[in-house]
Amino acid sequence: MRLYGYFRSGTSHRVRIALNLKGLTYETVPVHLLKGEQRQESYLAVNPQGLVPTLEHDGTRIGQSLAIIEYLERIHPEPPLLPKDPAGQARVRALALICACDMHPLGNLRVLQYLKNVLGLDQEARDAWCRHWMATGFEALEARLAGEPETGRFCHGDAPTLADVCLVPQVVGAQRWGTDLGPYPTVRRIFDAGMALDAFVRAMPASQPDAA
Amino acid sequence: MRLYGYFRSGTSHRVRIALNLKGLTYETVPVHLLKGEQRQESYLAVNPQGLVPTLEHDGTRIGQSLAIIEYLERIHPEPPLLPKDPAGQARVRALALICACDMHPLGNLRVLQYLKNVLGLDQEARDAWCRHWMATGFEALEARLAGEPETGRFCHGDAPTLADVCLVPQVVGAQRWGTDLGPYPTVRRIFDAGMALDAFVRAMPASQPDAA
Repeated sequence: MRLYGYFRSGTSHRVRIALNLKGLTYETVPVHLLKGEQRQESYLAVNPQGLVPTLEHDGTRIGQSLAIIEYLERIHPEPPLLPKDPAGQARVRALALICACDMHPLGNLRVLQYLKNVLGLDQEARDAWCRHWMATGFEALEARLAGEPETGRFCHGDAPTLADVCLVPQVVGAQRWGTDLGPYPTVRRIFDAGMALDAFVRAMPASQPDAA
Repeated sequence: MRLYGYFRSGTSHRVRIALNLKGLTYETVPVHLLKGEQRQESYLAVNPQGLVPTLEHDGTRIGQSLAIIEYLERIHPEPPLLPKDPAGQARVRALALICACDMHPLGNLRVLQYLKNVLGLDQEARDAWCRHWMATGFEALEARLAGEPETGRFCHGDAPTLADVCLVPQVVGAQRWGTDLGPYPTVRRIFDAGMALDAFVRAMPASQPDAA
C-alpha cells in the first residue's frame, strides 16, 4: 500500500491512524501542500481533485479519507473500526461525519487561502473563523459523547472506531489554532485515550517523514 | 420511519432520495431552518447538534445524512446504493464525499450566515464564495465522471448509487446560486438521468409539504 499525504493534513492523519490500528504497513509519498505539489500534473494524475490523501492498493487509487477507511475496513476487517449492529454503525459514522463534514472542511488549507487571498481576512479573523467552527463542532461532539450511554473509553465502547480516528486529528488541528478545549472534557479524555496507543502516536504529524 | 428535515436542505434531500429509491415510506417532520427551529429545545432534544436531517427508526435517532443512508443500506439492502466490490464501493463513497465534504459544507446556511453577519459580506460576495466552491467541486466530479470507465448512465454503472443521491441535490443547490453548469456535461447528463426517475422527482424541494 502507498499513501499520498501531507504530515499536517488532518485527513491524511485519519488514514494513518486507521492503517496503524489495522496493523498495515504502507509507503508514505509526501505531497507538500504549502508548496502546491497537490496541483502539479504528476499528482493530478494520481488524484484529479488535487487533494490529499490518496491510497494506492492493488491497482486501485482511492481518494477521500472516509472512503479509504471504509475500504480498509472491508478488505482488512480486523480489528474492526465499526460496530457490528446497524444502530452502532450509524452512531459511529455520524460522530465521524461531524468531524469530516461540519468541522474539517471549514478549516482546511484551501478555505483559509480563500479567506486570506480573496476576502482579505487577516490572521486574527481567520483564526476566529476556525475557532468558531471548531467550537461549534466540539460542542456537538461533547453533548453526544458526554450524554450517551454508548460512549466508553473511546467514542463508542472501549476500543477505537472510525469516530476516534476522526476525532483525534480534529483535536490536533484545533490545538494548532489555539481553540480552548476546556469546555469539552469528554473530547479531551478520549483524545488522551487515543494518545495512549502506539497506533495513534505513530500517526502524529510530527512523526511523519515529511514533517518540517 | 420519521424524517426531520427541511425542504431546501441538500442533506435532507439526499435522504429523501435514498428512502424513495428503497421504496420506504416515512413521515415528514418539517424543521424550518430560516425560522431557527433547529435551535429550539424541542429539536435539540431530537438532534443535539441542531442540524437536519434526523431519521427516527425503531427507537434510534440518527443524524448526518450519509450515516442515515448507510444505515438504510444496511437494514434495507435492496435495491443497493453501493456496489458489491470493495473498489467500486470506495469509488462511489469517494464521489459522494466530494459533495458531502468538499462542496456542501461550504455553502450551507450557517456558513452563509457567518459570512453575512460576522464578516459583513454582501450578497454578491457570498454568491461568489458559493460559486467558487461549487465550481471547484464540479470540476473534480466532471474530471472523474467523464474520464473513468465505471461511469455509466449514473455515476457508477447504470443504476443510481449513493454518489447520485449526493450529486443531484448538489446540482439543485448550485442552480439556486446561479452556478454555470455548462462546463460539466457529464454532471448534467447524470442529473437528467436521475430526474427521469420518480424517486428523484418526488424528493425535490418544491414537492415537500413544507415548501414555501
